[in-house]
Amino acid sequence: MVGDDGGPRWLDSTEMRAWRSYIVGSALLRQQLHSELSDRHNVALGDYELLVLVSECADHRMRMAELAAGIGGSKSRVSHQVARMEKSGLLRRTTCPGDGRGVFAELTDAGLAKLVEAAPTHVEGVRAHLVDLLDEQELATLAAVFGRMLDHLDRHGTAH
Amino acid sequence: MVGDDGGPRWLDSTEMRAWRSYIVGSALLRQQLHSELSDRHNVALGDYELLVLVSECADHRMRMAELAAGIGGSKSRVSHQVARMEKSGLLRRTTCPGDGRGVFAELTDAGLAKLVEAAPTHVEGVRAHLVDLLDEQELATLAAVFGRMLDHLDRHGTAH
Repeated sequence: MVGDDGGPRWLDSTEMRAWRSYIVGSALLRQQLHSELSDRHNVALGDYELLVLVSECADHRMRMAELAAGIGGSKSRVSHQVARMEKSGLLRRTTCPGDGRGVFAELTDAGLAKLVEAAPTHVEGVRAHLVDLLDEQELATLAAVFGRMLDHLDRHGTAH
Repeated sequence: MVGDDGGPRWLDSTEMRAWRSYIVGSALLRQQLHSELSDRHNVALGDYELLVLVSECADHRMRMAELAAGIGGSKSRVSHQVARMEKSGLLRRTTCPGDGRGVFAELTDAGLAKLVEAAPTHVEGVRAHLVDLLDEQELATLAAVFGRMLDHLDRHGTAH
């Protein structure tokens, strides 16, 4: 990954503009979605994302390792997060008899109720601040680009 | 923002695929770039991003409020981050005589040295995990889409 002179290949102005817009836009989007969820439903965006993933699994429970992969976080960070959410009653940690492969996070009734309550706010934000700003072609490009990135990072052997 | 039946307009499968790829891909990308910077240069991605912004300002210093806007973070979070980076010697907080408009973050010699040392690793990661995976058209779409999102969030009056 070096330039013709052996030095780093710095981004040109077009690449830099795309990169900066993406990084700053993504940070602001998360901040906005987080504010909407925490102001209206007293739930953090990261916690909401975790509730969604667990709710989509059979029996509303998911292995901790799969949970980490599903939100793109490290196992230790997700473990702390689940412990915190257990204290606030949204999830519980369980083990499965006869299954030695670790700990599950399981949705509680309160967690499911919070998810059902907050989901309309979240989808409204996702539409207003991203999806509805894009035409069909741009949405397809977004899916293609980030799908390719996910494949690349999986092959690359990331920290997760 | 309601569907024909008055309920939320949930994402369809195409929109959901784009959204999920974007959210999970972005989280994994930050985790990967963070690992590369912290493993090789002992600097967190968020701290590196802050050093870049300050280094681009006249006299290597920047108002705290502008810094928050530039990285898409809240003022309180950026304030904590700068305090931490001041302790580790990468930045110092200053006030400008005759300028009542608040506190600046200023790059130290150690901060500049860290930035110069880590920049080739960062640009290599940004290229390998995103920019070089995209063709010219995709890169232009990325810039357009996130530029539009930034304009929208600015108008919308976000939490920052």
